[in-house]
Amino acid sequence: MTRETEERLDLAAKLGTRVPVIQSPMAGVQDGKLASAVTAAGGLGSVPAAMLSISKLEQALEQAVDQGPLNVNFFCHTPPVQDATRLQRLWELLTPYYEEFGLAVPEPQSGGRSPFAEDHAELIEHYRPTVVSFHFGLPAQPLLDRVRASGALVVSSATTVAEARFLEQQGVDIVIAQGVEAGGHRGMFLTTDPASQLGTFALLPQVVAAVDVPVVAAGGVADAQAVRAAFTLGASGVQAGTSFLCCDEADTSALHRAALRDADRETVLTNLLSGRPARGLRQRLINELGPLREDLPAFPLVATPLGPLRAAAEQQGDAGFSSLWSGQNRAGLIDGPASDVVAALADGL
Amino acid sequence: MTRETEERLDLAAKLGTRVPVIQSPMAGVQDGKLASAVTAAGGLGSVPAAMLSISKLEQALEQAVDQGPLNVNFFCHTPPVQDATRLQRLWELLTPYYEEFGLAVPEPQSGGRSPFAEDHAELIEHYRPTVVSFHFGLPAQPLLDRVRASGALVVSSATTVAEARFLEQQGVDIVIAQGVEAGGHRGMFLTTDPASQLGTFALLPQVVAAVDVPVVAAGGVADAQAVRAAFTLGASGVQAGTSFLCCDEADTSALHRAALRDADRETVLTNLLSGRPARGLRQRLINELGPLREDLPAFPLVATPLGPLRAAAEQQGDAGFSSLWSGQNRAGLIDGPASDVVAALADGL
Repeated sequence: MTRETEERLDLAAKLGTRVPVIQSPMAGVQDGKLASAVTAAGGLGSVPAAMLSISKLEQALEQAVDQGPLNVNFFCHTPPVQDATRLQRLWELLTPYYEEFGLAVPEPQSGGRSPFAEDHAELIEHYRPTVVSFHFGLPAQPLLDRVRASGALVVSSATTVAEARFLEQQGVDIVIAQGVEAGGHRGMFLTTDPASQLGTFALLPQVVAAVDVPVVAAGGVADAQAVRAAFTLGASGVQAGTSFLCCDEADTSALHRAALRDADRETVLTNLLSGRPARGLRQRLINELGPLREDLPAFPLVATPLGPLRAAAEQQGDAGFSSLWSGQNRAGLIDGPASDVVAALADGL
Repeated sequence: MTRETEERLDLAAKLGTRVPVIQSPMAGVQDGKLASAVTAAGGLGSVPAAMLSISKLEQALEQAVDQGPLNVNFFCHTPPVQDATRLQRLWELLTPYYEEFGLAVPEPQSGGRSPFAEDHAELIEHYRPTVVSFHFGLPAQPLLDRVRASGALVVSSATTVAEARFLEQQGVDIVIAQGVEAGGHRGMFLTTDPASQLGTFALLPQVVAAVDVPVVAAGGVADAQAVRAAFTLGASGVQAGTSFLCCDEADTSALHRAALRDADRETVLTNLLSGRPARGLRQRLINELGPLREDLPAFPLVATPLGPLRAAAEQQGDAGFSSLWSGQNRAGLIDGPASDVVAALADGL
């Protein structure tokens, strides 16, 4: 048995967890509480940094870091240059909604999703989490070197075989194969076309065949049955997000929870809520403007213009402008402690 | 054990085959030879009727029907009304290519894909295949009644849980859960938005949970490992297409075979080649005009205007305008007899 194969077979040992189950970092609906609860239950809890200020991130790390192994997740997109024409077009699309809610159209602002930067690297050096994971590829080499030097395992998501090969060549320790079923943002970084994205059932075995590092299955991993199937397809571990969304320790809003429990509401891949393709439940804005548009400002510059609308609508109990992120399988939703979700998933091991 | 569960567990007995492996009907790249070979090898061979004239279909049935159980597959789309504006727009898009190849722009014609009709029903009544399967929903009730009265099992594809429930309510005997990984046309009929399509990993277990009839997994079923995973997710059988495309008995063109063997060429979901979303390998036209467009004539009226271009390009060894249908996993391609593919898939049972 090669060293690689052994590592693949014992991802939990590598992570220092009881089970090779990673809680997906879910920016906007969780802080350190959920991460802490998952780690305490034997999985790998994740803190999503993308929508947190440095002080909020520090707070979340304080909450979670003493519990055991922890994953801290960062976006690593290139901050966009504003395109005035596209921004103007977005305002044309949104102005009727602003009028409907009696809101003044605000001044343009930044998108509110910060990529991995110096101050984040400092926090990593201080808190020394077991895993640092990235979404949208990897950060610039000097920053990545600092993460490695901290002793953290480096993890990133691949949505194609080419992305998995690239990540392995860059020296990542673990590749997450993110099938198109997954909720939230697609990790895609070498490709921009949603039409090329692969389902877990096809992506996972091809990534396992293409790289030597352990591969974690993400996208549709809702319950024990899915975990069994993921291991059948060659996974060394699983990452699950949606099944944790209704947990006690998640900060998922009541509106989002209600939408998740509405079996008739389907998910779509949409770039309308941030500028990058992400999977969420249908709502009014997606239905009226279309899930995938080519005329939007770059990620994350779409998010801020939507903010006041979303807030005004949510105050009226209306989720029509909200990011209702969800994967394609909600069979594993549990209203209860996150430890119940970890146990349900671990049943498939 | 309920009657339904027993049936689910023994789909091969229901089909009269040795193994619950169905060869996907693949219009344009096969006739009765492939179907006959698959049936002889213990699976269920399929004859795709959509692109065959009645006399060609009769020939294909003659070729295959004595071998044992057979599936005959029909499209059942509503024949479209031509939209002059959209047709004009398509000609604008295609004219530069016609000029490049020195071709005269031909008169508009029909799309060359016939939905299930009276004369097809007569053939079914004559040949009495074991299975009649439909793509894009089901035909009108009187035609469906004739198929049932012939004694055939009625099968159709679902791409969402709602479509699976609809098909069960209409009395189909078996539902194919067609994940987004599948090559060729999406069977979608209650939804039109490709952004809503589910991966096999999420679709299959949810369809199995939603209906009582046996469910066949399609989309990414490339090899024995995939078959094992499909059964882990609750399938009673599998349907595989891509893995048969390079077989001796398939009529797949040399250009198409070469493209399938090019590992760097990715598949995309595209409506550009027929007017309905279908999965195929990227080629020049898709790259230049975009995989998914909203300004195209209705299915199948796109196909005919492309015909002369495709033929002229193919004569020059150029697959830039061809329908290079393929699923997302080409790991199971076999240059050899179809019986080898059936055996490879059956290893996973």
